[in-house]
Amino acid sequence: MDLLTKFSETAGKHSPLEEEIRKLPLPVSSVFVGKDGKVRPAAFRETDMKLVCKGHERIAEVFPRTVEKCRNIVLEAVPFGDTPVPEGKRVAVLFSGGPAAGGHNVLAGLAIALGEKNTLYGIRRGPKGLINGDLFEIRKENIRSIINIGGFDYLGTDRTKIKTDRQFAQVKETVVENKLDGLVIVGGDDSNTNAAFIGEYLQAEGIGCSVIGIPKTIDGDMAAGKFLPISFGFDTATKIFSELVGNLNQDAASAVKYYHFVKLMGRTASKITLEVALQTKPAIALISEEIAEKNMSLEQIVDYIVKIIARRRIRGINHGVILVPEGLVEFIPEMRRLISELNACLAEYERDIHDLPTLENKREFLYPLLSPQSAQLMASLPPDIQEMLILDRDDHGNVKVSQIETEKLLIDKIRFRMSEMKRHADRFFGEGEGKIAATPEQIDGFQKATLSTQSHFLGYEGRSSKPTKFDAAFTFLLGLTAGSLVLAGKTGYMAAVTDFDRGGRILALPLVGLITAEMRKGKEEFVIEKSLVSLESASFKAFSLNRDQWSEQDLFSSPGAIQYWGPTSRQIPVTVALDQGYPDFRDFNLGPEKAIELE
Amino acid sequence: MDLLTKFSETAGKHSPLEEEIRKLPLPVSSVFVGKDGKVRPAAFRETDMKLVCKGHERIAEVFPRTVEKCRNIVLEAVPFGDTPVPEGKRVAVLFSGGPAAGGHNVLAGLAIALGEKNTLYGIRRGPKGLINGDLFEIRKENIRSIINIGGFDYLGTDRTKIKTDRQFAQVKETVVENKLDGLVIVGGDDSNTNAAFIGEYLQAEGIGCSVIGIPKTIDGDMAAGKFLPISFGFDTATKIFSELVGNLNQDAASAVKYYHFVKLMGRTASKITLEVALQTKPAIALISEEIAEKNMSLEQIVDYIVKIIARRRIRGINHGVILVPEGLVEFIPEMRRLISELNACLAEYERDIHDLPTLENKREFLYPLLSPQSAQLMASLPPDIQEMLILDRDDHGNVKVSQIETEKLLIDKIRFRMSEMKRHADRFFGEGEGKIAATPEQIDGFQKATLSTQSHFLGYEGRSSKPTKFDAAFTFLLGLTAGSLVLAGKTGYMAAVTDFDRGGRILALPLVGLITAEMRKGKEEFVIEKSLVSLESASFKAFSLNRDQWSEQDLFSSPGAIQYWGPTSRQIPVTVALDQGYPDFRDFNLGPEKAIELE
Repeated sequence: MDLLTKFSETAGKHSPLEEEIRKLPLPVSSVFVGKDGKVRPAAFRETDMKLVCKGHERIAEVFPRTVEKCRNIVLEAVPFGDTPVPEGKRVAVLFSGGPAAGGHNVLAGLAIALGEKNTLYGIRRGPKGLINGDLFEIRKENIRSIINIGGFDYLGTDRTKIKTDRQFAQVKETVVENKLDGLVIVGGDDSNTNAAFIGEYLQAEGIGCSVIGIPKTIDGDMAAGKFLPISFGFDTATKIFSELVGNLNQDAASAVKYYHFVKLMGRTASKITLEVALQTKPAIALISEEIAEKNMSLEQIVDYIVKIIARRRIRGINHGVILVPEGLVEFIPEMRRLISELNACLAEYERDIHDLPTLENKREFLYPLLSPQSAQLMASLPPDIQEMLILDRDDHGNVKVSQIETEKLLIDKIRFRMSEMKRHADRFFGEGEGKIAATPEQIDGFQKATLSTQSHFLGYEGRSSKPTKFDAAFTFLLGLTAGSLVLAGKTGYMAAVTDFDRGGRILALPLVGLITAEMRKGKEEFVIEKSLVSLESASFKAFSLNRDQWSEQDLFSSPGAIQYWGPTSRQIPVTVALDQGYPDFRDFNLGPEKAIELE
Repeated sequence: MDLLTKFSETAGKHSPLEEEIRKLPLPVSSVFVGKDGKVRPAAFRETDMKLVCKGHERIAEVFPRTVEKCRNIVLEAVPFGDTPVPEGKRVAVLFSGGPAAGGHNVLAGLAIALGEKNTLYGIRRGPKGLINGDLFEIRKENIRSIINIGGFDYLGTDRTKIKTDRQFAQVKETVVENKLDGLVIVGGDDSNTNAAFIGEYLQAEGIGCSVIGIPKTIDGDMAAGKFLPISFGFDTATKIFSELVGNLNQDAASAVKYYHFVKLMGRTASKITLEVALQTKPAIALISEEIAEKNMSLEQIVDYIVKIIARRRIRGINHGVILVPEGLVEFIPEMRRLISELNACLAEYERDIHDLPTLENKREFLYPLLSPQSAQLMASLPPDIQEMLILDRDDHGNVKVSQIETEKLLIDKIRFRMSEMKRHADRFFGEGEGKIAATPEQIDGFQKATLSTQSHFLGYEGRSSKPTKFDAAFTFLLGLTAGSLVLAGKTGYMAAVTDFDRGGRILALPLVGLITAEMRKGKEEFVIEKSLVSLESASFKAFSLNRDQWSEQDLFSSPGAIQYWGPTSRQIPVTVALDQGYPDFRDFNLGPEKAIELE
């Protein structure tokens, strides 16, 4: 057969790598291994650990049946023992929200846990499919093509939030019509909160269907200390981003002329940025949580960056990589104030502003309504960002904060400041508080240097990669855990794995112990709080202790591509290893590897 | 030692992957292996193959000494035999132009070929360093930290073109002062042409210094059929891009809402786009050479894309990836005409246009000077692109074609066309020539669907990655070849490797056989012609035979990350394998692997 024919036969996702990684064995924690050495479900026992969030009284009112049943106690998996595995159970699973690497291995884990005598259904296109009853049977042999493969495409996904009475009734209809004994929801904080509501609702309706959540988000902000070191997808996404940022580091040092500004996905926490910074050691990495904590203004951030660029230039380094978290703008206190003032104005004067014919009229109308500080800040933003703040609205009539091109805003401001420094060098260089020590030749060099920039946004390419060996193992265990919980008749739990360095410990976290009640804009909201970067954490300390050295000496790293074989294939996020107190991040241990039987 | 301490010690490029890949053995073609099994230089013999470009008479006039000496005959490496390896030679090497993966292994190959008894020098910052005499000695033990590692940062690089008499004299000074016996220039077509000029010049000056070129460019457009299947860096860059495009394919199918428009680096040939298309099988890939050949207009390209989007929508697919080569605009014949008319006007009326105060005045002035076709095309472009065409000039006063955001231009035009199709569905759907067959429900579905787009540019992240196993091996052999050529006293050759499927054949191509003389804007220019995508090639046929199927059925592939261990680590570009007639692209053979001794 000639190569053209061979090549034409590769259509349909069969890359050489995918052909091989489907065959890879997966580690399995001992609790899932029977006496015969086969992978099987686990049973659960109560631990002496409880999960209780602030405002628990209110949660107990809203989720009375779930709270009564689980008593906020964390469960731990134990070997199933000699009792026969339940049979005839029907379990459906859906993906919710943005893709994350490893979703397909959750299906693999579920299929293996349920075995031949129970039935697994896939729900197409997320919550929307649950509402519409769009289910299909997943057989063990279907798993063969998707095991260890990235993406959510086997089921699809969707962002519908199940809120209305009508939607809950539709969910009930799907559960009843399909005689489901279990519903597994793979999603982020919103979806897991939704899972808790569905679980409570089905109990109230007298329907015996277990609802189990699986923690997914590449952002890394769904975590709960020692109970949930990380959600799945974070390891893969940060490794892809670290590969690319590492390459840009190497390219910057090679081409010796560019500053690459890299915005990293993650609208709330800067956990992705922190992990990528530790992996790649760039010239600069901004951490939103630190900027909020230190109450830094936009001008102070610009000042911080420009001074590093200037000091590097003086040391002969005119290139580098600057990491910017996607959610930065909302963590700059003065920007938050401006945006909240704008939102208030736009709500109160919606009609007036709408009726004004030109952008200039709207501007004239708006400025006097702002506080002087916010007006000054607004006026100091580039024209296209001002225009966007005035004209673009989301569905709730608010400013579209996520649309602000933060990295371009920074580049713009940095250019102005650099020009100022070149023209008024005496104010910035020399002896004295806040000035940069430099010889006349060094100042001359700085004045002659140009700032060439490139901006990048990394996000989508990290969501649907093939999972790393860690994420593949982690998600397979999460699937086994969720399947086991359903077989054990548990409801209202989130599957979790801890102790990545010691074989893996399998937990079930009561969802009601993760949810808090909050007043937001005068409305009560139930949320799983995002886990932000703590300035007290070991991972942030590792960053803050080392960053000045990285800036000054260009000590970057380039971690390279995700490996599936060889000595570097078993790494976990360095932030997770530091914060969990593991001895290393270069070799996880989630149990001995097993070939997964999918015949 | 705790993890924080361990972590802090990793500063300075020591990622776990880099620590390991430095130890990897490299394949070595038999011609470089001595009887004792050690790696050593080769000797050269003349083959019966000649390389002669069109206009050779003129080349023979410009490079009389080189042509007389090499007689355009291709040399082939043969084992060195029992004669002792020359000693006391001094050889310098430089990187020129944009980084490409594998540059450091060229240094490794040179160091090994020269051995202990000769001296290797690195030239800092490319041609500029050659002019300024900025050299430093590279010892074998220095190679240990850079072998198999990406980037050009060990030497740095630069884009200075050596043109003036003064510059040639400075090069001579560097060569004479440092008593260089050899000069190795790692670069693209321009740099290799420059190498030929320097070689001729040094001969004319009576200086016995070999000048050898090494073919580097990620763009893949420096190639010469069976003599030079590919330049180094292409394999690595296209694998990085294919990884990312594959991930976006997977993400598009998972999130089921986006079309990702991906612009791929490469200002001339679409070779990168063709390779990435074969690797990833996207919804659409545009090949500039085909568009030029078929004389397609911008509107026809938009039409082609929109019809595929519509047909996919009818089949229930509302997502996908669209690949756009960076150089597209210059291959659209009508755009070429517009740009050349604009350049002519701007040259003739430079002063007039400059003196007009506003953009609107300039526009009024320019339009009557264009042909009606070009005026219409110009007027149909988005305002910011019109503005850019009128205002932005490069150093030669020409339109900055490379700055045109082609993917955004296409997105803009596609949106208009889709709206038109939705409003006037009867003109686009139904029976008849060029119409799309669809049921009323399908048309309704199309009218309700929204087009969500994301645009990406892939380039810098592919230039400085760690080299693939292929590029690492290829560049090591190129370094061995260049070192051997210098020791053999050869000048005016480019190192080349062929037969990647059969142990590697080592060639030296006469540079004067690759260079043509061309009249460009009334000026004679000497160039190595870019190798474009041939519509007759096996690789293009593999694409054109399969692309409709990929568009219609979403049969994408996701090749995943570059591997350094395991069964998928030895791939080469599929376009190269197809065009060279190799039996497969999944396992190269460049000789048995040898541990490289760098003590």
